[in-house]
Amino acid sequence: MANHTLSPLPRKTVEAAVRTALEEDMGRSGDLTSQAVIPAGAMAKGAIVSREQGVLAGLDLAVAAFHTMNEDIDVDTLCQDGNAVKPGDAVWTVHGPARDVLAAERVALNYLGHLSGIASQTRLYVEKTTGTRARITCTRKTTPNLRTLQKYAVRCGGGFNHRYGLDDGILIKDNHIAVAGGVGPAVKAALAGAGHMVRVEIEVDTLEQLKEAMDAGAQAVLLDNMPPETLREALAIIDGRAAAEASGNVTLETVKAIAETGVDYISVGRITHSAPCLDLGLDLEITC
Amino acid sequence: MANHTLSPLPRKTVEAAVRTALEEDMGRSGDLTSQAVIPAGAMAKGAIVSREQGVLAGLDLAVAAFHTMNEDIDVDTLCQDGNAVKPGDAVWTVHGPARDVLAAERVALNYLGHLSGIASQTRLYVEKTTGTRARITCTRKTTPNLRTLQKYAVRCGGGFNHRYGLDDGILIKDNHIAVAGGVGPAVKAALAGAGHMVRVEIEVDTLEQLKEAMDAGAQAVLLDNMPPETLREALAIIDGRAAAEASGNVTLETVKAIAETGVDYISVGRITHSAPCLDLGLDLEITC
Amino acid sequence: MANHTLSPLPRKTVEAAVRTALEEDMGRSGDLTSQAVIPAGAMAKGAIVSREQGVLAGLDLAVAAFHTMNEDIDVDTLCQDGNAVKPGDAVWTVHGPARDVLAAERVALNYLGHLSGIASQTRLYVEKTTGTRARITCTRKTTPNLRTLQKYAVRCGGGFNHRYGLDDGILIKDNHIAVAGGVGPAVKAALAGAGHMVRVEIEVDTLEQLKEAMDAGAQAVLLDNMPPETLREALAIIDGRAAAEASGNVTLETVKAIAETGVDYISVGRITHSAPCLDLGLDLEITC
Amino acid sequence: MANHTLSPLPRKTVEAAVRTALEEDMGRSGDLTSQAVIPAGAMAKGAIVSREQGVLAGLDLAVAAFHTMNEDIDVDTLCQDGNAVKPGDAVWTVHGPARDVLAAERVALNYLGHLSGIASQTRLYVEKTTGTRARITCTRKTTPNLRTLQKYAVRCGGGFNHRYGLDDGILIKDNHIAVAGGVGPAVKAALAGAGHMVRVEIEVDTLEQLKEAMDAGAQAVLLDNMPPETLREALAIIDGRAAAEASGNVTLETVKAIAETGVDYISVGRITHSAPCLDLGLDLEITC
Amino acid sequence: MANHTLSPLPRKTVEAAVRTALEEDMGRSGDLTSQAVIPAGAMAKGAIVSREQGVLAGLDLAVAAFHTMNEDIDVDTLCQDGNAVKPGDAVWTVHGPARDVLAAERVALNYLGHLSGIASQTRLYVEKTTGTRARITCTRKTTPNLRTLQKYAVRCGGGFNHRYGLDDGILIKDNHIAVAGGVGPAVKAALAGAGHMVRVEIEVDTLEQLKEAMDAGAQAVLLDNMPPETLREALAIIDGRAAAEASGNVTLETVKAIAETGVDYISVGRITHSAPCLDLGLDLEITC
Amino acid sequence: MANHTLSPLPRKTVEAAVRTALEEDMGRSGDLTSQAVIPAGAMAKGAIVSREQGVLAGLDLAVAAFHTMNEDIDVDTLCQDGNAVKPGDAVWTVHGPARDVLAAERVALNYLGHLSGIASQTRLYVEKTTGTRARITCTRKTTPNLRTLQKYAVRCGGGFNHRYGLDDGILIKDNHIAVAGGVGPAVKAALAGAGHMVRVEIEVDTLEQLKEAMDAGAQAVLLDNMPPETLREALAIIDGRAAAEASGNVTLETVKAIAETGVDYISVGRITHSAPCLDLGLDLEITC
Repeated sequence: MANHTLSPLPRKTVEAAVRTALEEDMGRSGDLTSQAVIPAGAMAKGAIVSREQGVLAGLDLAVAAFHTMNEDIDVDTLCQDGNAVKPGDAVWTVHGPARDVLAAERVALNYLGHLSGIASQTRLYVEKTTGTRARITCTRKTTPNLRTLQKYAVRCGGGFNHRYGLDDGILIKDNHIAVAGGVGPAVKAALAGAGHMVRVEIEVDTLEQLKEAMDAGAQAVLLDNMPPETLREALAIIDGRAAAEASGNVTLETVKAIAETGVDYISVGRITHSAPCLDLGLDLEITC
Repeated sequence: MANHTLSPLPRKTVEAAVRTALEEDMGRSGDLTSQAVIPAGAMAKGAIVSREQGVLAGLDLAVAAFHTMNEDIDVDTLCQDGNAVKPGDAVWTVHGPARDVLAAERVALNYLGHLSGIASQTRLYVEKTTGTRARITCTRKTTPNLRTLQKYAVRCGGGFNHRYGLDDGILIKDNHIAVAGGVGPAVKAALAGAGHMVRVEIEVDTLEQLKEAMDAGAQAVLLDNMPPETLREALAIIDGRAAAEASGNVTLETVKAIAETGVDYISVGRITHSAPCLDLGLDLEITC
Repeated sequence: MANHTLSPLPRKTVEAAVRTALEEDMGRSGDLTSQAVIPAGAMAKGAIVSREQGVLAGLDLAVAAFHTMNEDIDVDTLCQDGNAVKPGDAVWTVHGPARDVLAAERVALNYLGHLSGIASQTRLYVEKTTGTRARITCTRKTTPNLRTLQKYAVRCGGGFNHRYGLDDGILIKDNHIAVAGGVGPAVKAALAGAGHMVRVEIEVDTLEQLKEAMDAGAQAVLLDNMPPETLREALAIIDGRAAAEASGNVTLETVKAIAETGVDYISVGRITHSAPCLDLGLDLEITC
Repeated sequence: MANHTLSPLPRKTVEAAVRTALEEDMGRSGDLTSQAVIPAGAMAKGAIVSREQGVLAGLDLAVAAFHTMNEDIDVDTLCQDGNAVKPGDAVWTVHGPARDVLAAERVALNYLGHLSGIASQTRLYVEKTTGTRARITCTRKTTPNLRTLQKYAVRCGGGFNHRYGLDDGILIKDNHIAVAGGVGPAVKAALAGAGHMVRVEIEVDTLEQLKEAMDAGAQAVLLDNMPPETLREALAIIDGRAAAEASGNVTLETVKAIAETGVDYISVGRITHSAPCLDLGLDLEITC
Repeated sequence: MANHTLSPLPRKTVEAAVRTALEEDMGRSGDLTSQAVIPAGAMAKGAIVSREQGVLAGLDLAVAAFHTMNEDIDVDTLCQDGNAVKPGDAVWTVHGPARDVLAAERVALNYLGHLSGIASQTRLYVEKTTGTRARITCTRKTTPNLRTLQKYAVRCGGGFNHRYGLDDGILIKDNHIAVAGGVGPAVKAALAGAGHMVRVEIEVDTLEQLKEAMDAGAQAVLLDNMPPETLREALAIIDGRAAAEASGNVTLETVKAIAETGVDYISVGRITHSAPCLDLGLDLEITC
Repeated sequence: MANHTLSPLPRKTVEAAVRTALEEDMGRSGDLTSQAVIPAGAMAKGAIVSREQGVLAGLDLAVAAFHTMNEDIDVDTLCQDGNAVKPGDAVWTVHGPARDVLAAERVALNYLGHLSGIASQTRLYVEKTTGTRARITCTRKTTPNLRTLQKYAVRCGGGFNHRYGLDDGILIKDNHIAVAGGVGPAVKAALAGAGHMVRVEIEVDTLEQLKEAMDAGAQAVLLDNMPPETLREALAIIDGRAAAEASGNVTLETVKAIAETGVDYISVGRITHSAPCLDLGLDLEITC
């Protein structure tokens, strides 16, 4: 569950993500409600408060939403990404021009809720596997154009990342195997064609495929949809010669048994593509 | 449930969304696996198949993922956005160069799964309210930078859209009321300051606030977190003089009773921010 | 004429507008004249001075032109947007590196002259209608890609803005009426199809059309090219049930009579599309 | 008046100008009126008609506005840029899906009206100087970010362009002269520092300055605010050794007398910064 | 020398590279010479001809320069990337509007000359190592913002690519070793911290370091600046357990001896950062 | 050799160049090696040192690479662009967070090495021509998308720039002459069609062409591939009436003799397109 090595999101990533999200919400005319109802000089003071139990991710984005709107908004963070929160916990306090605080609120909460939802789901899987060697990893099943943020949220939850995309690792799947004429030829083609800095992994459905992959020199194997007892046999075949990853409809009910087989990695699609939002709110008081 | 007036997503929106998502997945070096394992001339043929019951949204994005990768990929669509599917239904067939079909697959499925998830959730709410006058609408609680797509998915599910953002409608909330010195002054300030093409809505928590809003000339009222019996009293007060919208932690369990009170709109945050992905896959055969 | 509620242009709008305008003028090689003739260390000091009577708009853009060129240029503003100036009035003083002051001068003056021209024209219309309830508004007849700035200049002149574009208000014109099968069906289609935050306005040429529009529930009516006496009849028909807007070749000669009929809004295309530039200059002294 | 060598605007310039202008008008939700009132299948047919006398400029932009909205809109152009039109002249006919024709109309007319206004003003100056050697040129006093289009419109009107910006020509003005220690040193510094492809022009207010400039080797001289008799003396001094340009508050009343002095160029700021829009309209019939 | 598996540059990479290069050369006013001297209707016909011996790379970019300028320019390619040429060889023929052919010429030749220069240098190294197992690879010492193109040119010359950048492979250098407390701890930290799809390579200067690296589990080793005899000892230590890469001031004089030691890879910085341009020209005839 | 008037690269040019180059190297996941091996708090201190004799160019880019990565990296510059360096000379010292120093190193060195290579080559040509009136100039044979930087490097080396691109000067070459019907007609067409701020130069191969060009009023002539004795004859014909530029396969062996003929300019393609990189390195010590 330790995320002691959590590197923050690059500042430029944060800035770009927040700027486009604010543009999306503000449009060409800005916040009509605040302009019409809130006096230009009014100040607002308040706190972002969690309404649920979960794990935080995305504080930098939420803070940047306020600062991008107005540099003079003061934010005092009380928590960090990766921290657990329970209902009622204040995450940070905010103080600044009321119009701008109100205009930035939704973007801040939308980012924080979305990413904390992913971190919270990830943490549930990580907790189920405590005490085993298995690392929980995400997949490429992410919401389009949000991969950097979602992968970061997985790390906040204590999970690990798989390859980023198609260009930084080779993962041979059933379709590739079919056209390459089998597991062995596919692995060999990959090892021959790839540069020497690229890792070659192959997805196998059966122990026969696994043996063929190991013989061909696979550096990692994805054991797809295998029950725990088959995973154990697979690990015996692998015998430490390749990284072993379990995958395929892993749920909170099944993950513990899978982890206890001794696999190195368990990849879970639903921590990124189906995590519900964490419920957070902004409790404000306006001061003129 | 009719979505007969569903306008398609603008072509430019689709193109930009797909282009950036492909860049996200392909990086600078492209699909290393296909390049290493799939011969340049190999062709692939197959079908996108639903593995679950749900409602489709995002077909144009998924098709564009293939066409942006390679214009020569043929796609034959068997369904349209807004159609219901059940497990095993083929959504469209694809035929083209295997390397490019495989490289585009994940972006296509990520978009289609995400948006169909939203359409499917929306449809569940719409079905619960059939026979009432209530329209299900989304909120501004969307995933940042995906609002246009998510609002479209809501329409695919039979729902309606609220204002797009802060700039095309006035919605006065509790914080605005506080600083404006009450419901009446807030509504009056909004009516005075806004252009004549802007609608003024106000969120009220009590029937007293509602009366004050109606007296001040509110054009729409958001009735927040009121139980059905209070909603009925509210509707009697409004008496057709303003649009009536119910909101606040609406769930599939409570939506029917709310709709039966006679409100015009029910807005639901979770259809956009917490809808799980619809499970779809690409079943391929490679032909050299 | 009060513009006490004038919100400034968003900082990002200003920055982007100035950056691209400087690039347009500087090209790839920058200011050849200053580089060749002005020593690197020379300082310049001077003032922007109006050569005509008018109303200022665009000071933030003009100041940003200098600051974007060189952060070390000091600018001391003596006026604000919306202020009236007469020939000889100094608008602000400037002090900084001579090369950069000279390179930024034209962009600063081009913005300030263009927008002040619009504000000045608007003010003339506003003054003609003082004492009536009529608000002067602009239209969508703006110079392409300058709408945000030009609408802001209208506000500086004391005018009001109509809808921003096609997406934040419904305005049904003759062509829409023709295809919809008449005024009544057009209004009804609009009310049915639009979201509940969108206002529906219709343009009518005759009192018969107006009656039909009012019966169908129009929320605002644009009374096109009607002489004052007809406008009065129209207002009697409307009877406070909808906003009343007069339009169609309004000039400084005709605007007063139109305003005195009691209409709520008068929209004028020429304040944006045909306002002549306000003549301003930079009077400098160079100090080495 | 001949513009036989008029090169069209680069296609990419046209595309970018139109795309951003359409985005400005359509916003995030598109044309709400057409979506709500015009059936998806309706077709529209009509003509762009001039309501005034003038000279056309910007047809490619106007046509591109329709084609960018929908490639299937047919446009039949009846005129070309540089052509004179009178009230009632049809400029082109259009036929296509009604929703898209209506959505693109305003951008098309805004570009065409703005640039034709500039071409029309320019033509008035050009006609006044027919029979003389003087060429009418524009200045850098253009609307920010529209310089390429406005300079093109000047050429459509029969005028010529001065340098594009600060980077493709040296024009020494009074401020430069002051710091350089006089006209002679300024010209010499410019000739020494500039590359051999750059032309050096200097603005002079008096005949003494002019003599000094000629002695120093100026390649062009801008004769600022000189009455015709002084211009004649100046031309005698120049004696064909440099290009002679007259400038400074040139109007339709004064331009003929200036041209008859024999100057090579007359530069006029108001043809770009203060030309009123040419009035054009779209006369449509809708066919379902 | 075989480049049978050479994947073409992605179309989007080509389009973006050519578009910005044309903008760089054309500026805001386009090709003044052609506009002034070449009649609008003139056609040009000719051939790109090599003036030197070398290997081609970048044909798609050069062809795209003409097509981006004008889609109607016909290009007939006579060679392919990776082909060897000698002085006088025609690379392709071109036929189209003379103005556009001339305007695109320089961008086409600049790309083709630069990348063919890299391919030609690479080929020289590859030829020196024929018959050995060593693959010639490039490094990250590329011209900024041209890495994708330069790495492609290396492949055209028969070379291989190392990791693309900092994010798709781990390469531990002396500075990393210092801070990590030695070779062993550095390798172990890398293996622990990296995802399972990332390869870990370490640069070693001595055989002692190499042994420590092998013991710690390094997956690849960069043998820096070792003479052939030391490389042979190193290979004996590695004994097939890791990929062996030689590097450090490799020249055409030394590469053969290095390759004959049996190393797997030889990385050479100068094939990308210091390759002289290949001399090519466009021989045209103009036809009116 | 004096570069006393060297204007620095515009800050925005530097920022954009560095930002995209860092993105190119960092990809989506950043520096995997530093993240895995270097503790977050470690500091690094060191110096950029030249390993060769040469002339510096691009220090601002190199410094910006560090500052863009992390504003808290301190850089102490010991040299300036245009300074000569010899092996072992420290160019600047750097001190800051080790992860960021290491991540920025390659981009900084790639820019500095590339541009210093160009400056160093240029300086060699400039030194050969000391004592003559000839200025060394670059051409349009630059690496695509790097022209601004490379032209700046030429100035750092003591050279001069020719026109920037196709739009800021007219240079008539053999192909233009052919279609225009000879040298005389080509020059006349150019003088007639060009604006008065544009310089007209023509390339001539023979003295007959030269005479025709001078008679037609050419303002500059490019004497192509003429031996010194022919150049002397050419200069006699020109007799000070036009700028005289020599060009065509100029090398370090031939440049002195060419310069001694008395030509004004010698343009050399290889100083930009074929200059080898200057070898520089970063010598670091890490401090935890």
